[in-house]
Amino acid sequence: MEVSLEKNAPHRVVIVGGGFGGLYTAKALKKANVNVTLIDKRNFHLFQPLLYQVATGTLSPADISAPLRSVFSKSKNTKVLLGEVNDIDPKAQQVILGDEVVPYDTLIVATGVNHSYFGKDNWKEFAPGLKTVEDAIEMRRQIFSAFEAAEKETDPEKRRALLTFVIVGGGPTGVELSGAIAELAYQTLTEDFRSINTSEARILLLQGGDRILPHISPELSKVAAESLQKLGVAVYTNTRVTNIEGNIVTFKQGDELTEITSKTILWAAGVQGSPMGKALAKSTGVECDRSGRVIVEPDLSIKGYNNIFVVGDLGNFSHQNGKPLPGVAPVAKQQGEYVAKLIKRRLKGETLPEFRYNDVGTLAMIGQNLAVVDLGLVKLKGFIAWLFWLVIHIYFLIEFDTKVVVAIQWGWNYITRNRRSRLITGRDGFVEGKTVNKRVQQPSGTPL
Amino acid sequence: MEVSLEKNAPHRVVIVGGGFGGLYTAKALKKANVNVTLIDKRNFHLFQPLLYQVATGTLSPADISAPLRSVFSKSKNTKVLLGEVNDIDPKAQQVILGDEVVPYDTLIVATGVNHSYFGKDNWKEFAPGLKTVEDAIEMRRQIFSAFEAAEKETDPEKRRALLTFVIVGGGPTGVELSGAIAELAYQTLTEDFRSINTSEARILLLQGGDRILPHISPELSKVAAESLQKLGVAVYTNTRVTNIEGNIVTFKQGDELTEITSKTILWAAGVQGSPMGKALAKSTGVECDRSGRVIVEPDLSIKGYNNIFVVGDLGNFSHQNGKPLPGVAPVAKQQGEYVAKLIKRRLKGETLPEFRYNDVGTLAMIGQNLAVVDLGLVKLKGFIAWLFWLVIHIYFLIEFDTKVVVAIQWGWNYITRNRRSRLITGRDGFVEGKTVNKRVQQPSGTPL
Repeated sequence: MEVSLEKNAPHRVVIVGGGFGGLYTAKALKKANVNVTLIDKRNFHLFQPLLYQVATGTLSPADISAPLRSVFSKSKNTKVLLGEVNDIDPKAQQVILGDEVVPYDTLIVATGVNHSYFGKDNWKEFAPGLKTVEDAIEMRRQIFSAFEAAEKETDPEKRRALLTFVIVGGGPTGVELSGAIAELAYQTLTEDFRSINTSEARILLLQGGDRILPHISPELSKVAAESLQKLGVAVYTNTRVTNIEGNIVTFKQGDELTEITSKTILWAAGVQGSPMGKALAKSTGVECDRSGRVIVEPDLSIKGYNNIFVVGDLGNFSHQNGKPLPGVAPVAKQQGEYVAKLIKRRLKGETLPEFRYNDVGTLAMIGQNLAVVDLGLVKLKGFIAWLFWLVIHIYFLIEFDTKVVVAIQWGWNYITRNRRSRLITGRDGFVEGKTVNKRVQQPSGTPL
Repeated sequence: MEVSLEKNAPHRVVIVGGGFGGLYTAKALKKANVNVTLIDKRNFHLFQPLLYQVATGTLSPADISAPLRSVFSKSKNTKVLLGEVNDIDPKAQQVILGDEVVPYDTLIVATGVNHSYFGKDNWKEFAPGLKTVEDAIEMRRQIFSAFEAAEKETDPEKRRALLTFVIVGGGPTGVELSGAIAELAYQTLTEDFRSINTSEARILLLQGGDRILPHISPELSKVAAESLQKLGVAVYTNTRVTNIEGNIVTFKQGDELTEITSKTILWAAGVQGSPMGKALAKSTGVECDRSGRVIVEPDLSIKGYNNIFVVGDLGNFSHQNGKPLPGVAPVAKQQGEYVAKLIKRRLKGETLPEFRYNDVGTLAMIGQNLAVVDLGLVKLKGFIAWLFWLVIHIYFLIEFDTKVVVAIQWGWNYITRNRRSRLITGRDGFVEGKTVNKRVQQPSGTPL
């Protein structure tokens, strides 16, 4: 259908998802003569690239979150709605939100991706992933509880299992997690325990491909692997996990099968499109790729519906170089801003050339003083890369009022090499499998 | 029994509880020739006086917590043990920790107090209290979810109930909670919603006695009440809550019964000694008062056992002015330091005069720019009192490395009048009673 410009009522834009894609779409529409409704099931935007720092006790959830309402409190054309969208009706131009419907003229779907266990969903309970604040707090609980339990454990076998950390997946999250855990075990916690020597901890990073951080240049991924090894992380490439059950990870290098007993197995491997992808396919007939991401047109709309757009991780945009754009914040940001611009142009009866991603480069944090930055021509490593990483992330956080505090906190943690946010909370404050603080009557637990 | 000084092995001090009492006892023993074992069921010390700021979205749990291990990492004579002590064996001089026992020469019990619903434990599920991080996160969830649900509610009756907040108890916690919620509703959130006017929120503070903050001077408690009313809090004194069920609070003023429907009822009234009090009474025959606090001797030991001490809120010390000392941090701190000194004296074969509390005065925060400080001769109110309150609390936090960040955060929130930590988390991120983010498989929720 064509967007009807005859209406006097302002054009209704509905955005589903408050991640980077949805957030920047709404931001870019602040001054446009449209009514924006931003729908998310959480009341805050989460700065996901820093979630691993919550999982490893450096930052608090609130440090990397911004309440959606406060982000948009000044943009009076924007309404924030809390709720979960299960389906849409493209004919009636409505999104279905529980038992109510929200009508739209233009719809932007930006619900992102979830973990994928490659069909082995039974692995999930043994190897939690890292997408939500709850995930991060649960990981934090497991990591620090493992050290606590080891301090009490007298059986050397069990103690070894408690001090063994296996991270599955050598992308940015896996690299950042294993680096941070190595710093914990070999630097932060060394003085803190009396019965165990935390330096005896083993940290294994398992990567299916032939190198970690496959999305950056080979030489930098080599640098990253070397830096991780210097930190004490055992990096396994060409390694396929064949099974995860209880405390046992089984993985294969070539024909060699290895079994590792580890109390803390963390999942940083696959992702799959969020359920909205399927819902879209069902209601609009649009195609999804193997990992459930929606195939989008050159202008980020979907086939047959030029008023429905998919931005961010949920979309598969392959028009630029044949293969899908990576699921990173800059892509989501640029796509959101593009769609906002396209809507404004259309309302003026104008058009916009198709979307082009301006690759700003990729970077990954390995540890304090250690990072890799690939800007194409310019490649940075070590301290300068770390500093660059810091600046970039703080710059990103500038959108939110969290930046100052987070900057201070980083600086502070950097000087003190301390991790303040080491709280073992929720799940009745797990202690050695025993349930404690029974007094909390409410279903205890809740992040941060 | 007498402490045997003949042993060559260092004197074994066991401290149960990592609150103010236990923490300061252990700190004061850092350089003593004793082996200290500090047992707590959480891995962090919690700065409880600021817990209400977590519950109202100003601070994160980690901002007011210090990992016990990092507090004592440098004191090599101190061992931190995670676990819950259920009982002690005074004859064998052992504390029972699950299935293991920890022997002591001197025992300090500092397990504090819990909520008391005056025997009406069924009220608990409708009116959560504020003692643990989990409590605070649950309160935060309820408070901000109420505004969110109100934004979606079309029925004026229900909307009114959602925007009604009842705080039971006019002590410091109740005053600070109601003041903070008033600032939320009438200042912080006014711009954030589109369908509701948060200024229509009703905040009721119910106090049984004839004035709030009964522990400070009448004129200051009058100032506090007036400041709260200026902020928009309806202060009810001489008001007894007769029933709490579902969303309905029933209270009595004189003979007049009133029923209020409120979705958010918060409990800040009574406290009772933690279970260790009963355990002590059972095993040592020591007496407890009506609220389950242990009657202590002038030197804070318990009758018949001069090597068992009770410090902090759990103890009832009435030797100074006939009535028990208040359950505040300064009392716990001074008592902990006193017992540490007494132990050191005893090891030298010396004695120490009985404990005396040096009252440093009392203070309560009402809101930004509003506090009351009662130093006996000097009484402060308004901005100067608020500043004083801030300085005192930051000074207290100096013990932990959190002070800088918290100071910055306060400053920042003060300037921006913003509340960053407004995350609705855990309990599957409650949205309007509907369960969302189903993808979180682990028992979702966990602070921090």
